[in-house]
Amino acid sequence: MERKDLVYITRRARFNAAHRLWNPAWSAEHNLEVFGKCASENWHGHNFEVYVTLKGEVDPELGYFINFNDLKAIMKERIEEQLDHKNLNLDVPWLAGKRTSTEVLARGIWEQMQEGLRGLNCALHRVRIWETENNYADYYGGL
Amino acid sequence: MERKDLVYITRRARFNAAHRLWNPAWSAEHNLEVFGKCASENWHGHNFEVYVTLKGEVDPELGYFINFNDLKAIMKERIEEQLDHKNLNLDVPWLAGKRTSTEVLARGIWEQMQEGLRGLNCALHRVRIWETENNYADYYGGL
Amino acid sequence: MERKDLVYITRRARFNAAHRLWNPAWSAEHNLEVFGKCASENWHGHNFEVYVTLKGEVDPELGYFINFNDLKAIMKERIEEQLDHKNLNLDVPWLAGKRTSTEVLARGIWEQMQEGLRGLNCALHRVRIWETENNYADYYGGL
Amino acid sequence: MERKDLVYITRRARFNAAHRLWNPAWSAEHNLEVFGKCASENWHGHNFEVYVTLKGEVDPELGYFINFNDLKAIMKERIEEQLDHKNLNLDVPWLAGKRTSTEVLARGIWEQMQEGLRGLNCALHRVRIWETENNYADYYGGL
Amino acid sequence: MERKDLVYITRRARFNAAHRLWNPAWSAEHNLEVFGKCASENWHGHNFEVYVTLKGEVDPELGYFINFNDLKAIMKERIEEQLDHKNLNLDVPWLAGKRTSTEVLARGIWEQMQEGLRGLNCALHRVRIWETENNYADYYGGL
Amino acid sequence: MERKDLVYITRRARFNAAHRLWNPAWSAEHNLEVFGKCASENWHGHNFEVYVTLKGEVDPELGYFINFNDLKAIMKERIEEQLDHKNLNLDVPWLAGKRTSTEVLARGIWEQMQEGLRGLNCALHRVRIWETENNYADYYGGL
Repeated sequence: MERKDLVYITRRARFNAAHRLWNPAWSAEHNLEVFGKCASENWHGHNFEVYVTLKGEVDPELGYFINFNDLKAIMKERIEEQLDHKNLNLDVPWLAGKRTSTEVLARGIWEQMQEGLRGLNCALHRVRIWETENNYADYYGGL
Repeated sequence: MERKDLVYITRRARFNAAHRLWNPAWSAEHNLEVFGKCASENWHGHNFEVYVTLKGEVDPELGYFINFNDLKAIMKERIEEQLDHKNLNLDVPWLAGKRTSTEVLARGIWEQMQEGLRGLNCALHRVRIWETENNYADYYGGL
Repeated sequence: MERKDLVYITRRARFNAAHRLWNPAWSAEHNLEVFGKCASENWHGHNFEVYVTLKGEVDPELGYFINFNDLKAIMKERIEEQLDHKNLNLDVPWLAGKRTSTEVLARGIWEQMQEGLRGLNCALHRVRIWETENNYADYYGGL
Repeated sequence: MERKDLVYITRRARFNAAHRLWNPAWSAEHNLEVFGKCASENWHGHNFEVYVTLKGEVDPELGYFINFNDLKAIMKERIEEQLDHKNLNLDVPWLAGKRTSTEVLARGIWEQMQEGLRGLNCALHRVRIWETENNYADYYGGL
Repeated sequence: MERKDLVYITRRARFNAAHRLWNPAWSAEHNLEVFGKCASENWHGHNFEVYVTLKGEVDPELGYFINFNDLKAIMKERIEEQLDHKNLNLDVPWLAGKRTSTEVLARGIWEQMQEGLRGLNCALHRVRIWETENNYADYYGGL
Repeated sequence: MERKDLVYITRRARFNAAHRLWNPAWSAEHNLEVFGKCASENWHGHNFEVYVTLKGEVDPELGYFINFNDLKAIMKERIEEQLDHKNLNLDVPWLAGKRTSTEVLARGIWEQMQEGLRGLNCALHRVRIWETENNYADYYGGL
């Protein structure tokens, strides 16, 4: 396999959303027992930050493999427009029936970004989501 | 009037909550027209940061007029326990019937802190609330 | 004078610009002597952050005295569109003939915002500009 | 009194130091009772951040009333060289016999900066010290 | 080898501690020559930030492989309770006889976390320690 | 191959510089079409942050494989002195004829740091450059 001269670029998006950790297959009691205050009945929310990292080979004429503004537009369409000022449990088709943990969200955004990047000359490397200043989840793609 | 040798101290608290801007006296259409996506039906949320500033005269034996841990405990009781992982529109008695804007929240927390500081040898100077990294509201007390 | 129940709100704008400290009335030698590397011939630049603070009385129906989105739009027109990706010495009519220090910039943005806020039911309180993470200037209006 | 067209500038300094809250007039037991873990026998420490704010009238030829580099040099001499990699209780003559709380430190740095700014055409407005990301103290001068 | 659908999660802990770089096998002169101001006699200190990263496979019922609160509790026991408001050279058994550099601290915390995570269905991936806003060390496990 | 007990350390440098995205082989019209406002005629600029990561085996006598102050000095010589308060398109020999994108800059700094680290007992692992708070590029070496 040919080695490539890869550069990795990362861009941040942000969205403010409501959610709660809740498993509809369980009783309310069991949800509260497992998820604690994260299962509060009337929702809570966060200022989420998403960092999307791509890898590719830089075109020397351009100085990049994707224009940051193009990446910004894809992230706006695939992340911010779908998640900002939404309820992650109720308003997002591709999270339906799932827990809305940071971990699951990272995987969901990975799939959205894969769609958004289809046909471009670069690869998705990582999706990182900060839920608070104290914790984040990373996903690098799976099986 | 005697001048005092005042020092001002500030401590941060944080809470994650859901809310929406909504005036129950109006129709849904009018709410959406006025408040835009901030009125989204299924809520959204934030990582709020609150900075409470007190002023007082330092006791030279102690090096302070209030122990930061005491202030931390008051802010935990008066701010975090009442607002963290809550819905600001539904779960907070002292916000009932009000808009849950950052501005109104600053005034509400001011009153909570006034209660919490009653009898202590210092004065509340300012309540600051950051809603996102882009905006905050300050309240210095009123009429 | 009637006391008012004021709330202060602050919103951030950002712009990336080139500048240098330079007094065209002086020789190049004197400019370099006075301003050091800040006078470098081929410009340098910054990610500037501007925090604009307004004060006003909250309308209880709305929960604010100005919608953050309206303030955002005014700041976009009066600050970002005029300064972002510009050369502060060459491209900005209202800085022509002035030093482009953070201090002078704060006063210039104050005047721009005064124009932008004309007729609104609130007052400009402060313009703060961060030039780097180590220094900023504040202007509260003048004479 | 003539009104002045004041601008306020702020610059940050940083230092890493050890300290503990301790009153030598008291027994060890009483110190621990009052100050808790802040009185730990073998010291603890912080990355302190100091923000010094000056006010003055801008010289239109220069665009400032004090060069940020001059302020940087004064803060280096008066703050960093005296406090960085030091033990605040043992190594700093102007803190001798005092509690090394953030509050007391703010007043001490105020006096140091007053000395450092003597004869300059501007006034010290505020000294702010962050001890951790959760708390800071402000001093605006006293009696 | 079966590929796994891994997610990586990271949580932050903080502690304020005193230390100095010092090799007891050397003279004071040699210590100062090698370590400079980091060897100051009366200690100095930092606000340390530790980011612990785990990897594992998400349980779809839960939305995670470890509850952030459980990780928080382990980090409190294994990191904060052992290091906060302590002297790293004098008070920490598992650092005895070692340099208390950020690098060595990262390895020590790695071992503590390995103990704390024993029996859990996930693996420690990285320990990162910020000593100041300018430098950090990472450890991914060793030989 | 022998496994090593590697630790990774990272240090930050900062510089303020002007640049624009511009390909001298193209017309002005084509440059503006491709690069948009990033090609503005009179330059713009940024507060760049560079994080350099090295890997090596810790000397147990020292607690590190390179003193942070030595790394600081190399980064000052190889990064800050060459880029701070400069025009990246005009003033930097090793960027001559190249686009001054964050991506290309990361590769250029990689080569500079490789030179600066020659003969030391550690390896360069990554160069990361933040251009704004919203985007950065990483380079891990190439072909």
